[in-house]
Formats: sequence, structure tokens, C-alpha cells
Amino acid sequence: MLIAKEALSQPQSPSCISNISVPLIVYETLSVDTKDLRFESHLQVMLSWEDPDLSWDTSVYHHDMVVLPVSKIWTPELHVTNGVQTTMKHGNKDLLVHSNGTIEHMVIMNTVVGCEVNLYNYPFASDFCPIAINVWALKGCGMFLNFGKVSTTSANRGDWLTEEVELNAKGGRDDRNYLWVSLKMRSENPFLYLVLPSILIIVADVVSFSLPLGGGERISFKVTLVLSFIMFLIILNDLLPGGGQCSPIIRKHFCFCLVILVLSTLQSMVLTRLAKCGTLWPCSLSKSKDSLLKDTDNEEESKSDIKASEEEKNTALQKVVKFLNKMAAQDHKNAIHHRFANKVDLVCFCIYLTVLIVYAVVILYFSFGSRCEINQLDFWS
Amino acid sequence: MLIAKEALSQPQSPSCISNISVPLIVYETLSVDTKDLRFESHLQVMLSWEDPDLSWDTSVYHHDMVVLPVSKIWTPELHVTNGVQTTMKHGNKDLLVHSNGTIEHMVIMNTVVGCEVNLYNYPFASDFCPIAINVWALKGCGMFLNFGKVSTTSANRGDWLTEEVELNAKGGRDDRNYLWVSLKMRSENPFLYLVLPSILIIVADVVSFSLPLGGGERISFKVTLVLSFIMFLIILNDLLPGGGQCSPIIRKHFCFCLVILVLSTLQSMVLTRLAKCGTLWPCSLSKSKDSLLKDTDNEEESKSDIKASEEEKNTALQKVVKFLNKMAAQDHKNAIHHRFANKVDLVCFCIYLTVLIVYAVVILYFSFGSRCEINQLDFWS
Amino acid sequence: MLIAKEALSQPQSPSCISNISVPLIVYETLSVDTKDLRFESHLQVMLSWEDPDLSWDTSVYHHDMVVLPVSKIWTPELHVTNGVQTTMKHGNKDLLVHSNGTIEHMVIMNTVVGCEVNLYNYPFASDFCPIAINVWALKGCGMFLNFGKVSTTSANRGDWLTEEVELNAKGGRDDRNYLWVSLKMRSENPFLYLVLPSILIIVADVVSFSLPLGGGERISFKVTLVLSFIMFLIILNDLLPGGGQCSPIIRKHFCFCLVILVLSTLQSMVLTRLAKCGTLWPCSLSKSKDSLLKDTDNEEESKSDIKASEEEKNTALQKVVKFLNKMAAQDHKNAIHHRFANKVDLVCFCIYLTVLIVYAVVILYFSFGSRCEINQLDFWS
Amino acid sequence: MLIAKEALSQPQSPSCISNISVPLIVYETLSVDTKDLRFESHLQVMLSWEDPDLSWDTSVYHHDMVVLPVSKIWTPELHVTNGVQTTMKHGNKDLLVHSNGTIEHMVIMNTVVGCEVNLYNYPFASDFCPIAINVWALKGCGMFLNFGKVSTTSANRGDWLTEEVELNAKGGRDDRNYLWVSLKMRSENPFLYLVLPSILIIVADVVSFSLPLGGGERISFKVTLVLSFIMFLIILNDLLPGGGQCSPIIRKHFCFCLVILVLSTLQSMVLTRLAKCGTLWPCSLSKSKDSLLKDTDNEEESKSDIKASEEEKNTALQKVVKFLNKMAAQDHKNAIHHRFANKVDLVCFCIYLTVLIVYAVVILYFSFGSRCEINQLDFWS
Amino acid sequence: MLIAKEALSQPQSPSCISNISVPLIVYETLSVDTKDLRFESHLQVMLSWEDPDLSWDTSVYHHDMVVLPVSKIWTPELHVTNGVQTTMKHGNKDLLVHSNGTIEHMVIMNTVVGCEVNLYNYPFASDFCPIAINVWALKGCGMFLNFGKVSTTSANRGDWLTEEVELNAKGGRDDRNYLWVSLKMRSENPFLYLVLPSILIIVADVVSFSLPLGGGERISFKVTLVLSFIMFLIILNDLLPGGGQCSPIIRKHFCFCLVILVLSTLQSMVLTRLAKCGTLWPCSLSKSKDSLLKDTDNEEESKSDIKASEEEKNTALQKVVKFLNKMAAQDHKNAIHHRFANKVDLVCFCIYLTVLIVYAVVILYFSFGSRCEINQLDFWS
Repeated sequence: MLIAKEALSQPQSPSCISNISVPLIVYETLSVDTKDLRFESHLQVMLSWEDPDLSWDTSVYHHDMVVLPVSKIWTPELHVTNGVQTTMKHGNKDLLVHSNGTIEHMVIMNTVVGCEVNLYNYPFASDFCPIAINVWALKGCGMFLNFGKVSTTSANRGDWLTEEVELNAKGGRDDRNYLWVSLKMRSENPFLYLVLPSILIIVADVVSFSLPLGGGERISFKVTLVLSFIMFLIILNDLLPGGGQCSPIIRKHFCFCLVILVLSTLQSMVLTRLAKCGTLWPCSLSKSKDSLLKDTDNEEESKSDIKASEEEKNTALQKVVKFLNKMAAQDHKNAIHHRFANKVDLVCFCIYLTVLIVYAVVILYFSFGSRCEINQLDFWS
Repeated sequence: MLIAKEALSQPQSPSCISNISVPLIVYETLSVDTKDLRFESHLQVMLSWEDPDLSWDTSVYHHDMVVLPVSKIWTPELHVTNGVQTTMKHGNKDLLVHSNGTIEHMVIMNTVVGCEVNLYNYPFASDFCPIAINVWALKGCGMFLNFGKVSTTSANRGDWLTEEVELNAKGGRDDRNYLWVSLKMRSENPFLYLVLPSILIIVADVVSFSLPLGGGERISFKVTLVLSFIMFLIILNDLLPGGGQCSPIIRKHFCFCLVILVLSTLQSMVLTRLAKCGTLWPCSLSKSKDSLLKDTDNEEESKSDIKASEEEKNTALQKVVKFLNKMAAQDHKNAIHHRFANKVDLVCFCIYLTVLIVYAVVILYFSFGSRCEINQLDFWS
Repeated sequence: MLIAKEALSQPQSPSCISNISVPLIVYETLSVDTKDLRFESHLQVMLSWEDPDLSWDTSVYHHDMVVLPVSKIWTPELHVTNGVQTTMKHGNKDLLVHSNGTIEHMVIMNTVVGCEVNLYNYPFASDFCPIAINVWALKGCGMFLNFGKVSTTSANRGDWLTEEVELNAKGGRDDRNYLWVSLKMRSENPFLYLVLPSILIIVADVVSFSLPLGGGERISFKVTLVLSFIMFLIILNDLLPGGGQCSPIIRKHFCFCLVILVLSTLQSMVLTRLAKCGTLWPCSLSKSKDSLLKDTDNEEESKSDIKASEEEKNTALQKVVKFLNKMAAQDHKNAIHHRFANKVDLVCFCIYLTVLIVYAVVILYFSFGSRCEINQLDFWS
Repeated sequence: MLIAKEALSQPQSPSCISNISVPLIVYETLSVDTKDLRFESHLQVMLSWEDPDLSWDTSVYHHDMVVLPVSKIWTPELHVTNGVQTTMKHGNKDLLVHSNGTIEHMVIMNTVVGCEVNLYNYPFASDFCPIAINVWALKGCGMFLNFGKVSTTSANRGDWLTEEVELNAKGGRDDRNYLWVSLKMRSENPFLYLVLPSILIIVADVVSFSLPLGGGERISFKVTLVLSFIMFLIILNDLLPGGGQCSPIIRKHFCFCLVILVLSTLQSMVLTRLAKCGTLWPCSLSKSKDSLLKDTDNEEESKSDIKASEEEKNTALQKVVKFLNKMAAQDHKNAIHHRFANKVDLVCFCIYLTVLIVYAVVILYFSFGSRCEINQLDFWS
Repeated sequence: MLIAKEALSQPQSPSCISNISVPLIVYETLSVDTKDLRFESHLQVMLSWEDPDLSWDTSVYHHDMVVLPVSKIWTPELHVTNGVQTTMKHGNKDLLVHSNGTIEHMVIMNTVVGCEVNLYNYPFASDFCPIAINVWALKGCGMFLNFGKVSTTSANRGDWLTEEVELNAKGGRDDRNYLWVSLKMRSENPFLYLVLPSILIIVADVVSFSLPLGGGERISFKVTLVLSFIMFLIILNDLLPGGGQCSPIIRKHFCFCLVILVLSTLQSMVLTRLAKCGTLWPCSLSKSKDSLLKDTDNEEESKSDIKASEEEKNTALQKVVKFLNKMAAQDHKNAIHHRFANKVDLVCFCIYLTVLIVYAVVILYFSFGSRCEINQLDFWS
């Protein structure tokens, strides 16, 4: 029986170096955490190596291959150099040993890798992440990996698509192998839930300039917009990806939107006062009204002396006309204020529109024109 | 005693192939995660196999069956091929061995399977998910499963009902067995919490066309609707299932609702201006008011020369009449603007209603008429 | 020493059946999850059984009882048949063995049991849940439990009170023992946070009928109510228990509240239009205003020909009177519209109140009158 | 070597009782969960006991003390009687054995203890929680603990301060030792985030009585307050501690605030109607307006017959005066209504203020005057 | 073979003291939890020590170094003294043994350390945290560490930057080594999401003083600001770091903002009343209106007696003039009230602005001028 033999064959010892061949890696991305900039993946790794101690003479023991429990023999351990948390499980409790000592085995790895995903142009983000798969090797002793092919499962659940998985080695060194995973975001949902509402709110703010100045509607409309935008922002703060080196430009976009909304609200408030008083500081509105009343008052007193019936009638009528004229004059004054405020409002609107257009061009340029570069392999200094 | 004997019988070795019979699988769905498109299930699997090393002569040892601790003998390990996380526990620390070497055992599996549930018509979703249960087999060595019957527990907690569980094998191959689990959503709650409020908000928006144009009520009403819809949307974003291949059509529905609400608000704002000025651009409202005042002003100056008492009285009265006429004329102008704006509003309302009806037909057709097909077995390429 | 002896005594083997006596179970409910309909409990189970292999002659070894490490001897394993997740830990690393082979031991079980708690009348819910405690037994081999008494700790933290724990056996079969746990909800907090705000909002909606129709206050008040109710609903959606067979009637209550609020808002909007125009469709308001102006216009032109001073004066005065009369006539028309709308409003209010009263009776009847029955033991088919 | 000797010394066996001395316990509170009423703590326990089997003759083996791996010798296990979840880890893989058999060891315990913290006066809560540390002892066999001193680390992170830790024994029994942990809440943050906004909202509600009745501002202000309070309440519901025996009085405070806010809003609505109509039911406002118009109408028809120029002029002027008089009379009526409503409003305001002051006294008395007592040691019945 | 030899070499025993050299520590901060004031880090520690039992004569066994499985030989265990939770895993299943007994090994530690991070000036926080790495040593027995160099990975994900890592020893004692980790917050995002909206809301509140007093716009604007700030506050409460010794000053800032917003709203409400009535208490507005009406009434009655046609006409005209005069007088009164209220408003505005400026200076001084000191090493008393 081989059972006795295997009992003592745990460590490998032939020449301090052993070659592990990895004929197949089946890769699957489980999840990408854009908050902590980590991503989890699931790897099924086929391993095959030779252990001379486990070979046998087929003439003595008449089986070409034999099944041995994995706990009784030595198996290589794979490491993920840039892994935050890696678990390696045996694919099965048994493994297959050929008569020449070749062992075939499969391990299942779940690894969480810290990868500073480039989220600069966030809802349209795509990046590469390395998974550095290596084995233990120290001062000439240890193992070397011979990789075969890498395949992906077709499973593409979640927000991130795994586009391609390649095998590379940094600087051609055989102890610095890594899987180069190309990830691409499904930008449809974040676009609809992050960018679209912000655009709609800005458009509503632009159109709200068509509301008349003095009526209170514009201000209540704008402050509702600001309120809804603040809430929108705060709730979305949980969904937005974290900072890192290439902080997503969409955060700046939201800040700009908030500031522009508040500024446009303030402008409306100031112009409302301008339309009412004609000046921004201690409003002369009540004073002019007061003088109108005083004039009427004085004339009333002087008038009470005259007693001629016809004259009185005329005077009375003239008083009414005077009153109407004064009202008209004050209306006129107000209308001048109002017209002035409307002109200022028009100028503000033009400035506002220009700023928005310039901003749109700038943000589109920064989102798509420039790129923020991250060296993903800097964990190997 | 059998204790000595069992000590060395861990691995199976007779002919490199062993048949494991699975007389009963009791299936229970634990939870369905529509965010990450995974579902968790609980399986109680009865296993029965023969281990010739564990048979005994009943004439020597007078027991038909014996109870052995599970840690001392070899037991088969089941795998879930498409499982993200699978734990297999022994149902008991002991198992039953018959004198002919037949072993009866039960294992309890908790498995999380990635299954791209078809959420196209989300609150009314139903789909099938495979759980691929297999054993280790490599190059002719290994095990084969002979399945018996599959039953479900009556437990149907949570949002998803397990309608039926069947046993299948892909392409008739005996190493590609899977449980075909038919899931159906309880659509009552998501309908009430997702679809109903969106319909109510749209209906409120339609009826809000009955509010008068100029009064500010319609705009403040509509902007409150938009605000509440944005908040409704953002909070619901957590509840809505994730993307995947067949992204739920309800996401598009919510986006359409948001856009139509904002457009209807913008239309109300523009028409409010139209009703006040008669034109969209630099409003002539204050100018006309101004000219009215100037006329009165000019005539007032010319009038101050004439001193005839009777004439004056008439002129005074005529002034009042003129003032009233001018006011009436301006009212008339405003009324024309208002009537025009009301007509445009009516046209917009008709367009809006038509768009909504067309949209309702289209969305109902896409929800129930068409189907998005997903190949659930593509993990076996 | 007994140490050598115990080394080989792990499995029990006397007659394929062993009796385990359970003198005491101390039960404590840890938490009840109304979302997934599971509940977690903590059980301290005293066990006592006889293992003939572990008995000794007190004349040879002069101790009545001895302490042995639990890892060296066989201990029975308890199962929770309807458990989703069960962990069993030994109460101590050592156990007490008497000279006659009686072993006393304590195990601590944490078990999560799926129990479809009856949440039909949710904030006043109370139900029974079984915990099926059994041991392994197959084809005549195995163990049987002899239960003693069951006690509860006085700890009653959390939302659910454990009222009573009883021991039962289904159909009198000794392999179908279960703990019958009677749970009762603390209904104070959910009542205050779920039912009270909904009642207050409905009451506010009823009283808001006292607000005048045309002023815009009523509509803005009602739409704020609807908005706050939608937000209330969505946030509470997380707190509300999940569906299952007996879906809580409070979900239907919230939906009814939402629909009635929206309907009452729509009614107010339609009546506002009615009060302004007198009809629902293309509003004749601006037309009548226009005709008034035209009349005045025409007369003005004809008037400019006549030059008689006295006549003119009279005509001028009559014009003013006519203008006032026309204004009064239009006011009169509006008042008729307004009075009509007020009457319709009163009728609507009565219907609304009737619906609410009928609804209150119906919901109270369904909450307390009827009961939704669930068979909690159906996991044993 | 001692290695051979230790191999067989696992269980303790001298006289069925062993004394474990605990010279030092270093205590640290990790977190207090006020939702589930549990608290987690971290204990570093120094242990020291004698194991005669591990003593040696220093003349034979020339070392006073020796380091042994912890896995090879027996170590005592501590239990937390009222613990929900306890993990005990060895402080080190090795321990120190003196030549006389005294063993020095350190264990690290993380224990989650269910403790019904008294949250009656919540943001100012402070309470004692016991951690019952004991060892296994049954029927005279087992261990006894001799405690030394207890110290706390200075670490006081989180919301709860650990003020003092004492060692006690219930009823003087040496198998009922417990740590008496005195906890005190940092009440600053909950006060600012829970109590302050509720006080501010109530104050704003009181001051809002200064807003004029009929203008719509008061109602829109109050309904905004109610809305913000409802949202405040719902969001805070997550932060508020759970029920238990001594439910925090702050929950009742919030409910009172909600009810008083809604009542004050309803009162404003009813008084607005009162100010407009003078009565609460079918409003006579439109009727009186109508009668005014009818009078004018009738007189107008009668007037059209008379043709005397002077008379006519007078009649025309008198008509204008009459019209103004009637308007004034109606204004007068409205003013009476308004004055009456204002008086009722003032009365309501006084009642409201009285209720608030009485409430403030009552709530302060209940918060600080009375105490809700909980027997924390009732797990030992 | 060395396999037999190693089997018995587990404990170290030469002289009760062994030196462990730590040539390299690679440090990486995983996350900083500002709520519970803990931080998690990942350490790759190279270890090297001598075990005389594992040396061999190279003349007998012709290998300079040999690879041994880690489970068969003794390895040192590192402790984190101030760690809440520490896991230590072997870097590999095998380690390298040189012929002179020197062993080279790598361990990977994940440690959660409680560190009271100084969050006094929160979004600009930076602090030092110690990680006390030590080994077991008791009464002269044990191990001592000889540290080499410490390096950080370049990975700087998340909100906290690791600026520098140094090795120190408290009081020069070689058993009190610690890593001195210098952390710095990325203050960009918290500033934009916490400080900016609060500043914008305060600025909007300041500018809202430009809105006219009586029109209702200012109050509705301010109450919307308060509402949005309350919601902003509550939602942010989750994001704000917990208390601890140096509670972040930003919490006080938010409370101040809330109080100042509420006070400014109350001031607006009170001044609105002042502008309408001229006094704060039982408003004389309706009384004066009433007296105006009574006067007109009385005169009307006296007038109806007189029948002279000319006199009547004059009286009628004079009545109209009187009516207008009285209206003007009342307007005058209102204007005086209004002007007074505006003056008070201006004074309040100045006070408000002064308070804000003083506050800004104070808060800036406290944020940057002063420092709250925490002794991070107080776990070693």
C-alpha cells in the first residue's frame, strides 16, 4: 500500500527548487469596492507538480494513478503579493498521483486585492488591476511557476465588467507574475442616477430665470432646487467612490453645481430687493410713500379753510386726480426700479449662461481629454 | 473491534471510480440577493456509498450495522461548480455502516450560487437558476453521482417563492448534473412601493395642469413633485436590483418619469412668463406700463395751464375716465397675452397626455410582450 | 490511570441505541428578524448519558467521579431540524464521569430557526415558533432524548418578549420533539413610529378641508402632506417586516393612506379650477374679461364724437358707474362659480369622511377580528 | 527533558478541586450596543495555578522555570455566565512553568454580555453591568477562582465611559463572582442631535403664533415644521436605543412634540377659516358678497328709467358712495370675524403655552426625579 | 533525514531567553474608523532567529539550507499590546533553515488597534498612532526583538494617508517597542461635503435679509433653510466622527449654525408682526380698521337726512375724498410701523453680521490656533 509511504512524504526536499506548472487559471471577478478601492476575485487554479517521493514502480503496484487524500501530502501554497485578504481552499479532499510522481490538483482562491482603480472620469471609468500570483521563494530556495493559459468565466454580474485577463511578468522576472485584469464599469445606471438629475436641476435653474422677479415664485423655486440638490448630494455621498490619487471629477462637478445654484439664488434675492427699492441698502421705499402721504396731509389742512361750494367741488375732484397722479408717479418710480432690476437680471442671466457653457466645455475636456495615470504595480518597489 | 480496522481505511482505492448514490435532496432557498445577483440555498443531501474495506463478516462480528465516527472514515465531498461560496457540514458526527460496506450519511450544504436572475420586468420577475452539484472526477478517476428524488421544504419565507426544483443533466453528461430551481418573486410589495408612487406622482402632475397659470401655485406644486420624485428615486436606488445583462426596465421607467416631470415644470415656467409678457425675451411689460405713466404725465403738465372752472371739472373727470380706460387697455393687453398662453398651455397638455399614453403602451409592451433571454448554464463553456 | 482507557472509548457501540437524558434546558431568545422571518436563540442544554466503557471499579480506582477532557470521549450531538444555522459548543473543556459510567455535560447551542412569524396585525403581533431539537437516529440505530424541564432566563431584551417555552412532541413521536416558544411583540414603539404619524397625517388632511379653496394654501398644504407621507413610507419600508404568507395588514393601510391623500389633493386642484372658471375645460375666464373690455372700448370711441359739456360730464360719470357695474357683474359671476365649487367641495368632504370612517371600521375588523393561520410544523411533512 | 513528561499531563486530577488564582484583570469596554442592549468588553486575565504533575526536582533538572507550549498542557477555561458570545484566546503560545508546578499564563477574552442598560433618561444615561466570570464546577468537582485586583485601561473611546470596575460576588458565594462595570454615557452629542432640534422646533412653533392668521404664511410655516419633525423623527429612529424594561423617556417626548405640532397646525387651519367666514361650517362669505351684488344690480335696473340730468348725476355719485359704503360694511364684517378669530387665537396661544410649560416640568421631573430600577443580576435566579 | 529530528524540537529551551531579529517590517494602513476610533493595518514582518536544535553538521548532511514545514517547528508569536483584534498568519507553509540553526520566516499580521485619533479640527485632522509590537516575556524568560528597518507600501487608498512610519521604544525599554504611524486625513472631500454646504446655507441666510419683511417670502425662505439644515445635520451625523477626548470642533460649529438659523427665522417672524401691527402683543390692526369703518358709518347715517342736491353732490364728493384720506392716514400709520420694523431689522442684521464675524474668527482660532493633546501611549501605565 501507498498509505504507509505517503505518511512521511510531506515536505519537498530534492534540490531546494521545484517547478510548479499552472496549466489553467479560471478567473472571475466577484465584486469591485470603489469606496475602499479593493476588488475581490475568485480563481480556480489547476496545479501540477512532481514529487519523486510519491512515484512508484508500476510493475510492483499495478495502477497507473492513485487517489490520495490531500491532507497527507505536501501541496504548494500560492500567494497574492498585493492581496489584502486571501483564502486558498483545496478544490477537493483528494488528489491524483501518477506513477511517475506527477501530482494533479486544483485550488480555489478567493482574494481581495487593493487596486487603486482609476475613477477620474467616474461613471465612465475603466482600468486595469494586477493580481500578483506568486509562490514562496527565498535565497534560491523555493518554487517557480510555469503558467499555462488563463480564461474567464462568462459571468459578468454586478457593476463592473471583466473585459480581459492576461498573464504578465514585471520586468520579465519569473518571480513577479501577475494577472492583468481589465475592468470596465457599466456606466448606464450611475449616469442616470448621478449625472442626469444634476443636469436636470441645472436646466431647471436656468429656465427659472423666466419667472418674474418680484413675485416670490422665483426665490421659492430656487431655494427648493437648492434644498433638493443638497439632499441629493448628501444621499449620493454614500454612493460616490472614495478619494485616492485620482479623485473622481464628478465630485468637483457636484460642488460646482451646488455653488452655482446658491449663487443664482442669492442673485435673485438681491435683485428682488433692487426691484422693490431701487437701491440695495436702507430701502427708501417707505420714505417716498411717507412723503406722498405728508403732501396730501398738508394740502388737506390748507384745503379745509376754503368754503366756496363750486371751488370746493373742483378742489375735491382735483384732489382725487392729484391722488391718482401721485400714485401713478410712485408707480412710475417703481417701474423704473423694476425695469432697472430686469436689465440687471438679464445681464446676470447672460453671465450665468456663459459660465455654464464654459464650465460644460471645461468639464467635458477634463473628463475625456485628459487622463490621470496610476502606476498599479508600485507595490513592487 | 472495528475501531482498529477503520483507522487505516480513510482513502477509497478499489478501482479509481466509485459510485455515490444520492437517494434524497431536500432543498430550501434561503435568500435571493438581487443586487449582486446571487442566491443562497440550503441542501440536505442523503448520501450512500460502498466502501469494501469497511465490510465485515457478520458471523465473526454479530452486528448487522455499526455506528462509526465520521472523522475516522473517508466521505465523499460534493462540489457546486457555479458556487461562489459553499460550505459542507456533516449532518452528524456519526454515520451508519452496514455489514456489506454500504455507508449511509447525510451532509448539509449551504451554497451561494451566482445566478443572473432575469430582472427585466422587475416587480413581476421569475426565473430559473441552476445549482450544479458534482463530485470530483479527473482523467477517469473519481466519483459519479446517481441521483434519487429532490424535494423542497414548504418554507417560503422572504421575497422569492421557490416554485419547483428539478434535477437535470446538461447534454445528458453524467458529470454535469444540476438542480433547476424555479424562482418567482412576490411582486405585491415592490409594486406598491415602487410602481404605485410613480404612477400617483405622474397622475398628480397631469391634474396639476388644471391649476391656473400665473398664480405661482402650479409651479410650486410641480417643483414639489419633482423634489419628492428625486428623493423617491434616490432612496429607492438602494432597493432596485443591480444591472447585469437584463437590466430591469423599471429603471428606464423612473428616468422617463423624472424627465417628463422636469419638462412639464419647465413648460409651466415658460408659459407663466408668456402669460405675463406676451413674449419670451426682454419683457415689454414694464415699458408699456411706463408709457402709460408718461402719457398721463404729459397731459397733466399741459392741463395745469387751463384754468376754466367748468372745463377743468370736466377735464378732471375725463382724466379719471382716461386713467380707467388706460388701465382697461393694459388689462386687455394682458388678457390677450393670458389667453394666448392658455391656448399654448392647452396644446402642451394635449401633447403631454399623448406622450404619456404612448409611453404607457410602449412600457407595457416591453414589460410583458418581449423577454430578455439569459443562458444560465454558460459557466460550462 | 483512566487516561489510557479513555483514549479508545470514542464511539458508543453497546446496542445501537442509547438514551440521552436532558434534565434541563435554559432558553433565551436572542433576536427576532422580521425581515427574513428567522429568530435566533441561545440554549444551555444539560446532558447526561451512560457510557459503559467509561465505568470503573471504585475498589480499584478510589474516586467516585473523575474529570475528563471532552475531546477524548464521545459526546452526543444535538440537531435542530428546522434550523438554518446551528452552532453547538461544549460548555466546558472538561466533563464529569461517575464511576458507573454516567457522564454529565453541558452544551451551549446558538440556533437560527426559520419561523414564519405571523405578522398579519403587525404592531400587535404575537406567535409561536417551534425549535425542533433532536438527535441522530437512522434505521433503528441512534439516540433518543428524555427531556426534563425547560426554563427561560428572565432576560427580555429587544422588541420581542418570550412569554413561555414549552416542550412538545409532534404526534407523540419521540423523535419529533420541539420547544414551543411563545413570542409577543412590544407594540409600543412600532405603534408610535408607524401608526401614529399616519393617523396624524390623515387627520391633518381632513382638517385641511377648512382652508379656503382658491387661495393656493390648501393645495400647497396637501402636496406637502403627500410629500411627507411618501418620504415617511419609503424610509419606513426598511423597518416594515417582510412578506411571507401572512403579509402584515399595515402595508395595505399605508397604501390606502397614500392613495386617499393623492385623491384628496387632486380633488382640491380640480375644485380650484372650478372655483375660478366655473367649468373644467378651456376656461372662459379670460374671454368674459375680454368682452368687458371691448364694450368699454367701443363706447369710448363713439363717445369721443359728442362734445356737449354737461352731457359729457354725465356720460363720464356714467362710464365710471358702468365700469363699476361691470366689475360687480363679473365678481357676481365669479361668486356663483365660487359658491358652486364650495358646495361640490362640501359634498366631496362628506364622501371623504364617510370613506375614512368605513375604512377605519374595516381595517379594525381585519386587524383584530380575523386571524391568518400558519402551520409552523410543516417542515415535518 | 520535560517534553516527554508533559505529553501525558493534560487533565488535572489531584483531588477534584483546584484553585485558580487570578492576580490581575485588565478590563476595557469595547462598545455598548443600545439597540440590542449588549455590551462588548475585552479582558486580559492573568492566571496562575499549580499542577503537581508538572513539578520537577531542580537538582535533577537545573532550571528554575521552563517554557512550555500551551497546547501540550491543561489550562483552565473561564466562563462568562451571562455572556451571549465569548471567545477566549491564549495570550501566548507558550507559558511559564516553575519548578514547583506553578504555572503562569495569560488569557484574552472578548465577551459580549447582555445587559439591560437603564436608558430611562437616555441622553444622560448611566448604569452598572455585571460580567459574571466563573469556572466550571459541578457536584463538588471543579475549580475555584481567587481574584486579585482589577484595573481598567485608560482607553475611553466611543460613546460610553467606563467609570469604574469592581469585583463582587453575589450573596458572598465564591462561585458567583462578577465584575461590576459602571458605565456612563457621553451625553453631549445625543443632546445636541436629539434634544436640541426638538426644542428649537417647538420654540419656532411657539413664535410662529406671531405670524398673521389669514395670510397663509403661518400654515405653510407650521406644516413645514411638522414635515421636518416627522423626517427628523424617522431618521432618528435608527439612533434611538431599543425598548427593554426601562424604555427611554425621550421616545415619549418626541411623540408629544409631534402631537403638539400637529394640533397647533390644525388650530391654525381652523382659525384661518374662522377669520375668513366667522363660522366653521358652510361658509357664508360668498353669500354676503352675492347679496351686495344683487342690491347693486336691482338699483341699477331701476335707475336706467330715470333721465333727469342733474338727478342722474347725483344718483351716479351716490351710487359710487353706496358702493364704497357697502364695501366698507363688508370690510367691517370681515374685521369683526378677524378680531374674533384673533381673540380665539390668543386664547389658544395661552393654552398652548401653559401646556408646554406644564409638560416641561413633568418631563424634567420624570427624567431626573424618578428612576427606573433594573435588577442586573437576575440571570442567577 | 531532518524530519525525524524536527519532530521533537517544538519548544525553545536553551537559556530561557531568545533573540528574535526583525530585519524588515512592511507596513500598510488598511482603514481608519473614525467612529469607533480604531485603525486597521497590515504588517508583513520578516523574522529570523536561531534554534540550536535545528542546526546540523554540513559534512554529514550535504545541504547548506533546508526547507521545513512551519507546523513542525516552533515559531515566535508577535503581540500587539494595544490591539483590539490581531490575527497572525504564516507567510508560507514552509520556512528556510540554515545549517547553523538560523531560521528565516515571514508572518503577516492584520491588527486593529484602538487609537484615539485627534479629530479636534476634523476635516484637517492628522495624528500619530502607535502600534505596540512585542513578544512574550515574563519574569526574565521570553524573547527580545531586534528591529531592523520599517518601510511602507506606496498604497494610499482611502481617506487617510500614511505619511511616515517610525520605530520607537517607550522610555528606551526594549520590551516596549512600537511603530509610530503618522496619519493625515485627505481633507478635500469632507470639506466639500461638510463645511461648504454649512457655509453656503449661512451665506444664503445672511443675504435673505435683503428680502422684504412683510411679504412671507423671507419666512418661507428661512424655514426652508432651517429644514434643509436639520436634514443635512441628521444625515451627516452618521458621517461625523465619534466623540472621544478631543471631540471634533465641527460638531459645535453645526450646532451654532442651527441655533443661529433658528434665531434669525424667529427674528423675521417677530419683525413681520411688528411691521403689521406696530406692537408685538394683541395686535391693534383690526381695531384701527374698525374705527375707520365706524366713522364712515356714522357720517353716512347723518348724511342721509340732508337732501339739498348741490350740497349732496359736494358731500358725496367730500365723502370720497374723506374715504381716500382715511385710507391714506391708515397707510401712513402702517408705513410708520413698517419703517420702524425695517429699522429694527437693519439693527438685527448688523448684530447678526457682527456675531457671525466674531464667530468665524473664534472658530478659526480654535481650529488652527489651539491643539487638543492626547497621550497615545497611555495603555502602558
